[in-house]
Amino acid sequence: MAANKDNFCVIMGGGVGSRFWPFSRKTLPKQFLDFFGTGRSLLQQTYDRFKKVIPEENILIVTNDLYADLVKEQLPELASEQILLEPTRRNTAPCIAWASYHIRALNPNANIVVAPSDHLILKEDEFLTAIRKGLEFVAQSEKLLTLGIKPNRPETGYGYIQIDEPVGDNFYKVKTFTEKPELELAKVFVESGEFYWNSGLFMWNVNTIIKAGEQLLPEVAAKFEPGVGIYGTPEEKRYIDEHFPACPNVSIDFGIMEKADNVYVSLGDFGWSDLGTWSSLYDLSDKDEDGNVILKCQSLLYNCRNNIVTLPNNKLAVIDGLEGYLVAESDNVLLICKKDEEHSIRRYVNDTQIKLGEDYI
Amino acid sequence: MAANKDNFCVIMGGGVGSRFWPFSRKTLPKQFLDFFGTGRSLLQQTYDRFKKVIPEENILIVTNDLYADLVKEQLPELASEQILLEPTRRNTAPCIAWASYHIRALNPNANIVVAPSDHLILKEDEFLTAIRKGLEFVAQSEKLLTLGIKPNRPETGYGYIQIDEPVGDNFYKVKTFTEKPELELAKVFVESGEFYWNSGLFMWNVNTIIKAGEQLLPEVAAKFEPGVGIYGTPEEKRYIDEHFPACPNVSIDFGIMEKADNVYVSLGDFGWSDLGTWSSLYDLSDKDEDGNVILKCQSLLYNCRNNIVTLPNNKLAVIDGLEGYLVAESDNVLLICKKDEEHSIRRYVNDTQIKLGEDYI
Repeated sequence: MAANKDNFCVIMGGGVGSRFWPFSRKTLPKQFLDFFGTGRSLLQQTYDRFKKVIPEENILIVTNDLYADLVKEQLPELASEQILLEPTRRNTAPCIAWASYHIRALNPNANIVVAPSDHLILKEDEFLTAIRKGLEFVAQSEKLLTLGIKPNRPETGYGYIQIDEPVGDNFYKVKTFTEKPELELAKVFVESGEFYWNSGLFMWNVNTIIKAGEQLLPEVAAKFEPGVGIYGTPEEKRYIDEHFPACPNVSIDFGIMEKADNVYVSLGDFGWSDLGTWSSLYDLSDKDEDGNVILKCQSLLYNCRNNIVTLPNNKLAVIDGLEGYLVAESDNVLLICKKDEEHSIRRYVNDTQIKLGEDYI
Repeated sequence: MAANKDNFCVIMGGGVGSRFWPFSRKTLPKQFLDFFGTGRSLLQQTYDRFKKVIPEENILIVTNDLYADLVKEQLPELASEQILLEPTRRNTAPCIAWASYHIRALNPNANIVVAPSDHLILKEDEFLTAIRKGLEFVAQSEKLLTLGIKPNRPETGYGYIQIDEPVGDNFYKVKTFTEKPELELAKVFVESGEFYWNSGLFMWNVNTIIKAGEQLLPEVAAKFEPGVGIYGTPEEKRYIDEHFPACPNVSIDFGIMEKADNVYVSLGDFGWSDLGTWSSLYDLSDKDEDGNVILKCQSLLYNCRNNIVTLPNNKLAVIDGLEGYLVAESDNVLLICKKDEEHSIRRYVNDTQIKLGEDYI
């Protein structure tokens, strides 16, 4: 099946997370890492996945100036016009706004799938089918579509989408969005069958999203509207460098999805994880008979249970008598902490930066 | 005070210990390491110490062929004749026998101090005074002298020397040697005031030790006697390479000291440690207010007590929630185990060698 030339993909790859420090670093954020030693980073896996349903030349990466070289290195097949470089970080709404104006200049009928660069998808066929159907859905009407994931546990780290009545084969109107609930509420959500995880993956026609932005986020749209005529030309980067930093920092969820009245969701179970925490990585990974996860390195474990250990390739971890710990080393930092203390990682990173400086961040 | 030209020093630096693995490696044993980040390895510290009382040209290092380059690199001031290279490891008796025949060829009146290369001495002045007095003592009579250390705890990892009647200012005849006692016995030893730790450091006149060897270890002496006339000549190394490997593997303690009837001990408290275990290193090192010892690396510790942590220079250890652990990393190996499980290190090393090979040893 030939890919529809009207279909575009925007991969958002500008994030700097600290939750996987020291495995991820400011100079090498999570999307550029190969967590499972498969030979492809999360960004590369995302690209590989989408090029099966989107024409390769229609796949764009939006990232930060800082990561331009990393993106080119990891995806050398990209033409330079396929990499949109933000001069500063302004969250997802400005990122998506720019990409939308840029794409409309290339193809005023474009249907777009917007995706994070650092998520894991284990069931690729189901996922790609949902993308194909979703793009057809948004091509036919002025709808904003998000992908909802059937929850398998009362996860408190995710946002939830409550569905309303169905509007077609596996498409539902969205009733509400709820950010990270408390555990008790999350349990009620999961049991109700009405709530799905918000994957942060969206589809829409380019005109639908630009119109929604004009109505719901005029202060963002106002930064991009004056550039019409410049997008897709050699002057675009200069325009963006000048106007992008003035955008407010706002997410697409808060700025548009939670406010628009034409928001729909397509449901599925794609073996999806946002790989947001070491625990989520632990849950997804193969374990030895004692519940230990070893990523990338060699290991000899004695009296060890339920740990997650990752050292640089081929390094050897000899560990005796640890239970429930994270042991992660990368470059010049070794982190050892309880696996369920991982919310403290931000504190470790802050303390490190204050006491020891940028070299360890 | 000019150093006595009859005084010689033999530093034994051929050992391959695994007790500090992975900090020490087969290619870089303990004596070549700078445990405390002082800028000088234990071997270098030993050399620096003895050159204050022994003419520099009379200091010899006996080591293994394997470590010739390391010794030359760490002690570039040594002439090549000062490095005796064993073709194979045969414990301390053959090592000392060779050094003795070699030195007698250079100076038939030599008084010799024989010392390990990998011990720590914190009270250098007291130590050097004991060496000076000891060398005078053995110069005047046919006595074998060992240095005894006043014990400060019932250590079960050391050998003990029981003293008999005094024979001069701080010199005692030795009654018995006892290898590593059980804890209860060690406690009795320490309380008795009659037992001292065996430092493994000896002094004697060259003729006294050669005569003792002829009488008590004739199977060793027989390998060296035929070489008389060759020691100190360019032919010596060839002779040793041929005959040394045929020596039995026997320690000077077992082969001579425990059997001779002219063995004496000089007592002292030199801030001595054989640095035989991580625990001994822990005991000797500066601790933070929570009892943690950090060697060489940077650290941020949370909820940590009584650990010993060493990573390569300037590497950062961020550790939350460990108590009583050893965390040691060197090159391609990270070891994490309970500090009091360090007797298991030999097992870790063996398992590593079997399962992963020489690269990690």
